[in-house]
Amino acid sequence: MTTPKLHELGAAQAATLLARRELKAEDLVRACLERVAARNDDIHAFVHLDAVSALAQARALDAGPVRGPLHGLPIGVKDIFDTSDLPTGYGSAVYAHHRPAADAASVALCREAGAVVLGKTVTTEFAYFAPGATVNPHNALHTPGGSSSGSAAAVADHMVPLALGTQTAGSIIRPAAYCGVVGYKPSLGRVVGAGVKSLSPTMDVIGGFGRDVRDVALLGAVLTGDLRLLEGHEHGTLRIGLFPSPSWPQADADTQKAWEQATQALARNSDSCQDVAMPQDFDELIQLQKDVMTFEMARSLSFERLRHREALSPQLVALLDTGISIDGATHAARLQRTAEWRLRIDALFERHDVLLTPSTMGAAPAGLAATGDPLFCRSWSLLGLPAVHLPFARNAKGLPVGLQLVGRMGEDHKLLAAAQRIHDRLRY
Amino acid sequence: MTTPKLHELGAAQAATLLARRELKAEDLVRACLERVAARNDDIHAFVHLDAVSALAQARALDAGPVRGPLHGLPIGVKDIFDTSDLPTGYGSAVYAHHRPAADAASVALCREAGAVVLGKTVTTEFAYFAPGATVNPHNALHTPGGSSSGSAAAVADHMVPLALGTQTAGSIIRPAAYCGVVGYKPSLGRVVGAGVKSLSPTMDVIGGFGRDVRDVALLGAVLTGDLRLLEGHEHGTLRIGLFPSPSWPQADADTQKAWEQATQALARNSDSCQDVAMPQDFDELIQLQKDVMTFEMARSLSFERLRHREALSPQLVALLDTGISIDGATHAARLQRTAEWRLRIDALFERHDVLLTPSTMGAAPAGLAATGDPLFCRSWSLLGLPAVHLPFARNAKGLPVGLQLVGRMGEDHKLLAAAQRIHDRLRY
Repeated sequence: MTTPKLHELGAAQAATLLARRELKAEDLVRACLERVAARNDDIHAFVHLDAVSALAQARALDAGPVRGPLHGLPIGVKDIFDTSDLPTGYGSAVYAHHRPAADAASVALCREAGAVVLGKTVTTEFAYFAPGATVNPHNALHTPGGSSSGSAAAVADHMVPLALGTQTAGSIIRPAAYCGVVGYKPSLGRVVGAGVKSLSPTMDVIGGFGRDVRDVALLGAVLTGDLRLLEGHEHGTLRIGLFPSPSWPQADADTQKAWEQATQALARNSDSCQDVAMPQDFDELIQLQKDVMTFEMARSLSFERLRHREALSPQLVALLDTGISIDGATHAARLQRTAEWRLRIDALFERHDVLLTPSTMGAAPAGLAATGDPLFCRSWSLLGLPAVHLPFARNAKGLPVGLQLVGRMGEDHKLLAAAQRIHDRLRY
Repeated sequence: MTTPKLHELGAAQAATLLARRELKAEDLVRACLERVAARNDDIHAFVHLDAVSALAQARALDAGPVRGPLHGLPIGVKDIFDTSDLPTGYGSAVYAHHRPAADAASVALCREAGAVVLGKTVTTEFAYFAPGATVNPHNALHTPGGSSSGSAAAVADHMVPLALGTQTAGSIIRPAAYCGVVGYKPSLGRVVGAGVKSLSPTMDVIGGFGRDVRDVALLGAVLTGDLRLLEGHEHGTLRIGLFPSPSWPQADADTQKAWEQATQALARNSDSCQDVAMPQDFDELIQLQKDVMTFEMARSLSFERLRHREALSPQLVALLDTGISIDGATHAARLQRTAEWRLRIDALFERHDVLLTPSTMGAAPAGLAATGDPLFCRSWSLLGLPAVHLPFARNAKGLPVGLQLVGRMGEDHKLLAAAQRIHDRLRY
């Protein structure tokens, strides 16, 4: 085994070395900046960078006490998180010159824990579907996924060990799958959203990307304040529920193959895999997710809809116009239905610790005009359940393939522990 | 009955005249501006005002088509809502010169519906406890309540017919009670929060103030998009649950008298009043609300906590320091407990349409160094239930007294219809 180059170190590995003072934050930040300098013109993961400030922050960390679990780690921040010292454009020309007055709370928490914000990563327009400039690091003709495109690509391409993202439909799990990194979407309501552009408060969740479950657990512990996320090992037998989902017919050959590979590998060990009894009408959640998101986005982006219509993409205008025509009584009934579904699905976890389910229909599609379909993520987003994408295979074109693990509401520590064990089994 | 002066017109009354073109928006806005000019140096309800722009907007509305339910109505906006054309200070010296890039979504929705933002109203520091300059319009030596101090006082003093506010603990219901106006806190999750300073996402709700239930229903319909809020009459018999709450021993003589007056008046008509079977341990919700809010505020205000500590009030610093020391695992258990309580209390509404319960311990306390205690609001805030304050009496000192009506989650239209009927009965 060769020693990894500094910029290739995983977050958890690097954090250990940094805390022991066996690695300088300045050296790690410099290595990552060099990687960005070498690669960003091709990948377009970062939209704003401040190398001078990042190096200064790293030197200050090296000179002081160990600040917290992210001490000295460079991170990428999706450009819908406000930053007080870097421009914040929300992926839209409307905010091309915007300089927020404050850091988003989640950014401030990462900085408090010792992270160095290397720069802002590309997002789609207001984290919806109009793509940014990022390409897939594994094949520049393929989409990196969205909306956290730059964060997933930056981590996949070893520009940073960790990056922040958000998910409303599939914006963490999908780019993680397409770029072949671990994506972690926490339980709804566990990470405060202050200072992150709000789209659909019923579903918006802050999370992030790393190259190993241990890496995203580190980030998750800081974002949620829940140190159980760092424990990392689940004792006893795992009850893994197999949940191909009603959308399974839309999974392509790559996803089908990954599914077979995973279920076979997991069947060979002491954990138990059981088919989940599919809840009747589960597929209605997909349309429900779309409807709730459409209503809420049209209202959340009211200022932009009313004052900057001409600067929005046609697909966003179409969404907002549809959404603002939905009446609030209909929406209220949908929120009620959502609440009923959340209860109903919670009951599944009496029999299963985690659910194994597809992340995407397949590997990253060719083309950069769209960011792929969040089909397999929508239901879990609406339900608010914690989820992790686990990359563990490649298709014939060399593009990453993997699966998603979904946990019980609020039990992120159990999900991450299970994800770590399962990921280790699938990779080796 | 004398004809009210223009600035004394209620929102619903004025809206009807404006829509019929029997009243000019310019005249109404001018009358309100004159009232502000005459009174604001005493009451300190508004912190920012732009008379020239407000009049220009009014003239534009008079010259064009009727825009929506709030056409031509001047409104006050609590200064924790972002406004693109007025400074936004969040009640803190940290943001003394802050100019947001966009309107909060709720402000944009009001403008879309034809409202004219007259100005920004005083809030406590980051909508927590450190008071702003506002005094109670009924007695300048008494607090107006907080945190939506200026909005409640502006409506009470006839400076504007409507004003926007927010509630996390008791910041709509309490100032409404102290100032003697109708306050409406919608169901959690029905009004999008984009562009409003976020404190505790588990509870933050946007609502507002008027001088009649019909007035706040108009505002509520625009904020939620639910036109059922305008229907206003509930057919059939109301099942009113009497819920003095476990905190009843802390209600003073004024609140006790209001309670007797209301229950006697309501017993004389066809609606049924029944004692609610008090759920065991209901009083634990008060501490639970404090704990959840403390954890989330410490994280939501992380940037201010880390970068502007010296500019924060000692009481806010104390709260944030306590909050950041709470571990996320403990918080997760509290969120789980909150979810259980929400289900449990929902079951009460099988037997009662609305709950009658105190809003405050009594009338506005003397003194301006504090904004009163949200004791009787905390549980409903944590539960996320819609609530209305109904003012209907005065104490011996001439200060307003009233009670709170709480509805079932998501059934704001039923709550407002019931509130209108009950308010009409209590006042006459």
